[in-house]
Amino acid sequence: MKRIAFIGLGNMGLPMSRNLLAAGFEVIGYDLSPRARTAAAESGVELASSAAEAAGQADCVITMLPTGQDVREAYLADGGLLAASRPGTLLIDSSTISSSVTVEVAAVLRAAGRRMLDAPVSGGTPRAQAGTLTFMVGGDAEDLAAARPLLEAMGQKIFHVGGNGAGHTAKLCNNMLSGICMVGTVEALALGVANGLDPAVLSDVMRNSSGANYALDRYHPYPGLMENVPSANGFEGGFRSDFQLKDMRLAKQLANDSRTMAALGDLACEMFAMHCRNGHAGLDYSSIIKMAMELPGQAAMTTPAPAGIPAE
Amino acid sequence: MKRIAFIGLGNMGLPMSRNLLAAGFEVIGYDLSPRARTAAAESGVELASSAAEAAGQADCVITMLPTGQDVREAYLADGGLLAASRPGTLLIDSSTISSSVTVEVAAVLRAAGRRMLDAPVSGGTPRAQAGTLTFMVGGDAEDLAAARPLLEAMGQKIFHVGGNGAGHTAKLCNNMLSGICMVGTVEALALGVANGLDPAVLSDVMRNSSGANYALDRYHPYPGLMENVPSANGFEGGFRSDFQLKDMRLAKQLANDSRTMAALGDLACEMFAMHCRNGHAGLDYSSIIKMAMELPGQAAMTTPAPAGIPAE
Amino acid sequence: MKRIAFIGLGNMGLPMSRNLLAAGFEVIGYDLSPRARTAAAESGVELASSAAEAAGQADCVITMLPTGQDVREAYLADGGLLAASRPGTLLIDSSTISSSVTVEVAAVLRAAGRRMLDAPVSGGTPRAQAGTLTFMVGGDAEDLAAARPLLEAMGQKIFHVGGNGAGHTAKLCNNMLSGICMVGTVEALALGVANGLDPAVLSDVMRNSSGANYALDRYHPYPGLMENVPSANGFEGGFRSDFQLKDMRLAKQLANDSRTMAALGDLACEMFAMHCRNGHAGLDYSSIIKMAMELPGQAAMTTPAPAGIPAE
Amino acid sequence: MKRIAFIGLGNMGLPMSRNLLAAGFEVIGYDLSPRARTAAAESGVELASSAAEAAGQADCVITMLPTGQDVREAYLADGGLLAASRPGTLLIDSSTISSSVTVEVAAVLRAAGRRMLDAPVSGGTPRAQAGTLTFMVGGDAEDLAAARPLLEAMGQKIFHVGGNGAGHTAKLCNNMLSGICMVGTVEALALGVANGLDPAVLSDVMRNSSGANYALDRYHPYPGLMENVPSANGFEGGFRSDFQLKDMRLAKQLANDSRTMAALGDLACEMFAMHCRNGHAGLDYSSIIKMAMELPGQAAMTTPAPAGIPAE
Repeated sequence: MKRIAFIGLGNMGLPMSRNLLAAGFEVIGYDLSPRARTAAAESGVELASSAAEAAGQADCVITMLPTGQDVREAYLADGGLLAASRPGTLLIDSSTISSSVTVEVAAVLRAAGRRMLDAPVSGGTPRAQAGTLTFMVGGDAEDLAAARPLLEAMGQKIFHVGGNGAGHTAKLCNNMLSGICMVGTVEALALGVANGLDPAVLSDVMRNSSGANYALDRYHPYPGLMENVPSANGFEGGFRSDFQLKDMRLAKQLANDSRTMAALGDLACEMFAMHCRNGHAGLDYSSIIKMAMELPGQAAMTTPAPAGIPAE
Repeated sequence: MKRIAFIGLGNMGLPMSRNLLAAGFEVIGYDLSPRARTAAAESGVELASSAAEAAGQADCVITMLPTGQDVREAYLADGGLLAASRPGTLLIDSSTISSSVTVEVAAVLRAAGRRMLDAPVSGGTPRAQAGTLTFMVGGDAEDLAAARPLLEAMGQKIFHVGGNGAGHTAKLCNNMLSGICMVGTVEALALGVANGLDPAVLSDVMRNSSGANYALDRYHPYPGLMENVPSANGFEGGFRSDFQLKDMRLAKQLANDSRTMAALGDLACEMFAMHCRNGHAGLDYSSIIKMAMELPGQAAMTTPAPAGIPAE
Repeated sequence: MKRIAFIGLGNMGLPMSRNLLAAGFEVIGYDLSPRARTAAAESGVELASSAAEAAGQADCVITMLPTGQDVREAYLADGGLLAASRPGTLLIDSSTISSSVTVEVAAVLRAAGRRMLDAPVSGGTPRAQAGTLTFMVGGDAEDLAAARPLLEAMGQKIFHVGGNGAGHTAKLCNNMLSGICMVGTVEALALGVANGLDPAVLSDVMRNSSGANYALDRYHPYPGLMENVPSANGFEGGFRSDFQLKDMRLAKQLANDSRTMAALGDLACEMFAMHCRNGHAGLDYSSIIKMAMELPGQAAMTTPAPAGIPAE
Repeated sequence: MKRIAFIGLGNMGLPMSRNLLAAGFEVIGYDLSPRARTAAAESGVELASSAAEAAGQADCVITMLPTGQDVREAYLADGGLLAASRPGTLLIDSSTISSSVTVEVAAVLRAAGRRMLDAPVSGGTPRAQAGTLTFMVGGDAEDLAAARPLLEAMGQKIFHVGGNGAGHTAKLCNNMLSGICMVGTVEALALGVANGLDPAVLSDVMRNSSGANYALDRYHPYPGLMENVPSANGFEGGFRSDFQLKDMRLAKQLANDSRTMAALGDLACEMFAMHCRNGHAGLDYSSIIKMAMELPGQAAMTTPAPAGIPAE
C-alpha cells in the first residue's frame, strides 16, 4: 500500500499525515474546513475535492472524524467511502466513537468486499506530531499486518485488541480510567494542600506509593511541577475537557448497555460535564484541578463560611 | 417560666423573640451585632449588655447560634451561660450543630444542676415569623413539658425525639434527606425539560406519583411554578445554600463516625459545595437547579459540543 | 370504541383487562405464556391465537410488554400489530420503555394511518387491581380524548404530558426521582437509627419537615411502621428491584444522550444494580434499605472493625 | 540511638522489629496479645511486661497501633509512654491515624520535653518483611536525621513531608488516591471484559496509555495476570479491605473538616464499606474487583434480567 487517503486533517489528522509523508507514503486528503485543507496542502498533502474522490484513488483510507454519526455518514451515505472505494480497499477509522457504530459499519463494508480496522489512538497532538501515538486496533490480524507499516509511521505502540469494535472499546475503557485517575489525583492534591502539604513533596510521595498513576508521573495537573504539560501552559493544548467528556459519555453508555458497574466512571463523567459547563470546555482535561482547589495566581473560588445565625 | 433570655437575635432569633413577646413572655436578649440589637429593641425586646447578663435574670435561656464552636463557648467559657445562670435554669439550644457537641455541653450543664434541651428547628425565616416552626427536641420529657408553652409560642409542631443530642441528630437526618430530594428533583426536572416536557406538567405528574416530595409540593425550585417560594424571588430569602452545605457536612461527619452508608448524602453534599464555590452560597438551596439546567431569562451555562477533530 | 385487544396479560395486564371488562368493554387478549392465557380466560378475557389475530378484530389495541425491543417487534415485525390492525385503529403502549423507541414506532404507525399513544402507568399491581393507576400519556389530544373512557376504567389520574414519547419521558423522570428519594430516605433512616433514634419517631419528624417524600408518606421501607406496603410483607409484592433498575438504566441513558446532569440518578442506579447483584432483584425496591442497615430479625451484615495492627 | 522500644508487634511491627535487630539495634517490645509476644520473643525481641516498661529503657520508642484512640491512650494516659519515657526521648508513631490526633499528641509531648515524629508507612507486610517500606515523616528535620538509621533499617524510601501531622496527612492522601485508582481500574476492566476484551490485553493497553496506575503496574486485581500479588492468592495477604476502608474514612473526615472536594474519594470509600459489609472485610483491597465482575472459577453474582411484564 503506497497511496493513502486521509479524511479529516485537523489537530490530529494533519500531523499524522505529515508523518506518513515523511515515511514515504503518498497522501491525498480531504477536510470540510478550507483552513485545514490549506494547512494540509502547505505540508505536502495532495488535496482532493471530496472524501469520495480521495478514497477512489487510494489503496487505503484513514478517517479521523469527530463523532459516530460523522463516521456512519462518511462511510455509508450515498457517495460515501464505501461507494467510492474499490473492493479490497483497507479502511481504517481512527476516530473515537462507540464500538457499536464500528461493528455496524464494518459489517456493511465487509459484506461489500472491503476490509476495515478500527484504530483509535492515544497520545494527543504532541505525540501525533512526534509519531509516537499508541494505536488500539480492532479487526482481522491480516488486515492489521497490512496496515502495520502505516501505523508504525504514525505511532510507537500498536496493540491488536480483538475484532472490529475492540479498538474503540479499549479506548473507552482507558479514557474512563484516565478520567477517574485524574479526578482522584486532583482530589488527593487538594486534600494535602488544604492541610498544609507542599504539592511537589506530596506528589513525590504518592508517585512512589500505591497512588502512582499517569497524571502524577507524566501529566501533572498542578501548575509549576512539570514541564511540557498543559498545566505548565495555562491548560492550553493537550486534550480538551469536552473531548474527555465525550469519551466518558461513550463509556457511560457502553457500561449502561452492558450492565457493568461504573459508579466512579459515571461520577467522574458528571464532574467533567460540570467543569465544561463552568466554562472550561476548551481547556485540557487536567484543568479539572480548578474544580478542587485554588491555583496560585488565579482568582479565588471559595466557599464563604456562613455568617450570622443559621435559618431553617 | 415567665422571663426568657434569648441569645442570638438574627433572621431566626428575632422573629422567634417577637412571637414570645406576643404570647406574653418577657424577653431579655443579646446579640453580638449592634444592628441586630437595635432591631430587637425596636421590636420590644429588652436588651442586656451581654449574654451572661441576660441569662442571670431569666428562668429560661434560648440560644440560636451559628456553629457548634459558638455554642460550646457560649455555654462553657468563663463567664458563659453556665456560670451566669441559676441552678435549675432550663437552657434550650435551637442552633443546628452536631449532636456530639450537644451531648458534651448537656453533660456539663447537668453536672452543675442545670437542665438542657436541644431543640433545633425546621421551617426557616418565613415560618419563624409565622410562629409555625417545627421543633425537634432532645432531652428529658419533664423539661420539654416545662418548655412546651414557649415552644408553642414559636412553633406549630413539637417532636420529642429522644435524649440530649437526639434533636440535632433528627435535624441532620432530615436536612440530609431534603438536600438529596432537592437535587433529585432538580435532576428529574432537567431531564424532562431537556427532552421537551413542560416543567409544570411534569411536576404535576411527579407530585401525584412515587416521585412526590417536599420540593415539588411546597418548595418548587423551578421559577414561575409556585408563589411565595424562593424560586419566585430570584432565590433570595429562604435557606441559604451555605447553611444547607453546613448541615450536610455535619450529617456526613455523623455518618462517617457511625459507619453508616450515606452515598447519596455525601454526593449531594459535594454538589452543594460546588454550587457554593460557583458563587451561589448566599442563594436559597433550591437554586441548586442552576447546576442542572438553564433557567428562562438567565444567562446560558452550556456544554459546547466539541468542534473539529478529536485529539487523544 | 368497544372492542379492545390487550397484548400482555401478566401482573399488570390481567388486572387492567379485568377492569376493562368490568366497565363493559369487550377484551380479546393474547400473551406468550400459556399460564397467563389460562388466567385471563378464567377472568372472562376472550383469547386470540396471536397478537395479530387479536388486533385484527379490535378498535383499539393496548400493549403491556417488558422491553423496548419487545415493543418494536410486536408493532413493526412482519405480521405484527401494524400489519394486523385496520387503518384508524388506536394503539396504546403502556409498557415502560425508552421514549426514542416510542417516537420511532409512532412515526411508522402514523405514516401508515394508525393512531398511537404512549401511556405508561404508575402504581404497580395493587393499583392496577384497584383501577387507580396513574397514566402519563404522550400523543395527540384527540386520540387521548378517544382513549379516555378506557383509561378511566383502569386508572384514576390521567396526565396528558405532550406528544408521542412524552409519556415515557415523564415516567422515566418520575422513576429516577423516586429511586433517588427512596435511597435518600433509607440513608436518613440508617443515620438516625445508628445514632439511637427510633425510626418511627424520626419518620414522623421528617414527614412533617423538608424531608417529606412518597417513601415516608406512603411506601415506608422500614418494616413494621406501615401496613399494606412491601416492607410489611418481607418486601414481596410491590415493584421489583430489577424493574426499578431497568427504569433507572433507561433514565440514565436518556440523561446521557441529552447531556443532562444526573449525578444522583446515576449513583442511585448503580446502587440498585449492586442491590440486585446481591441477590435482591426480585424484592420490592424499598428493600434497598437492606443495603444501609440491619433490619430487626434479619441476619447481620456488618463491617467488622479492623483487628490487630493495621498493615500498609 | 541503640536501644529501641517497639510497641505493637503484629503483622507490621514484628517484621519491622526483625529488621531493626538485623541492623544491630536492640529491641525491647510489647504487645497486648500473648501470641504476638511469643512470636516476637522467638524472633529475638526482648519482652517487656508493659509498654511503659519498654519505653523507660529505650532511647527511642516506635508505636504501631490500630487507631487514633489507641495512640492517644498509649501516649497520654496515666502510666503511658509520655510518663514512662525520659526527657529527650524520640517517639515515632508509625500507625495510620488522623493527623489531628498526631498534632495534639505531639504538642503535649513537646511541652514535656520529648521529641516526636509521625512516620506512617506504605507497603504492607511483604515490604515490611523485605525492609523496603516507604516512610512518610512529619516532624522536625533534626529529629528525622536522628531517626534515619532506624528508618533505613526498615524502609527503602523516606520522605520528609512537613511538620507533625504531615506524615499522616500524606498517607491519607495517598491511600484515598490508591483506593480511587483501584476502583477505577476494576471498573475499566469490567467494562472491557463485559464487551469481549481479554483482560490481559486490555491491561497491557492501559498500562501503556493514560490509564496507567499502580494497580495495573504492580498490584493487578484480576486473578492470573500477575504473580506475587493478592489476586494470585485468593486475595489473601496484602492490605485488608477493612484497613483500606479505615484509611478512606479518615481521609473523608479530613476532607470534610477542611472543606475539600472529595467526591470520588467519598464514593470509593462507600464502595469499600459495601464490599466489607458483603463479607470481604478480611480480603485484600484489590478484591473490590468482585463487586464489578464475576471472576473465572467463582460463583456468579449477576443481575437477572426482569422477566414477565414490568409492573409500576
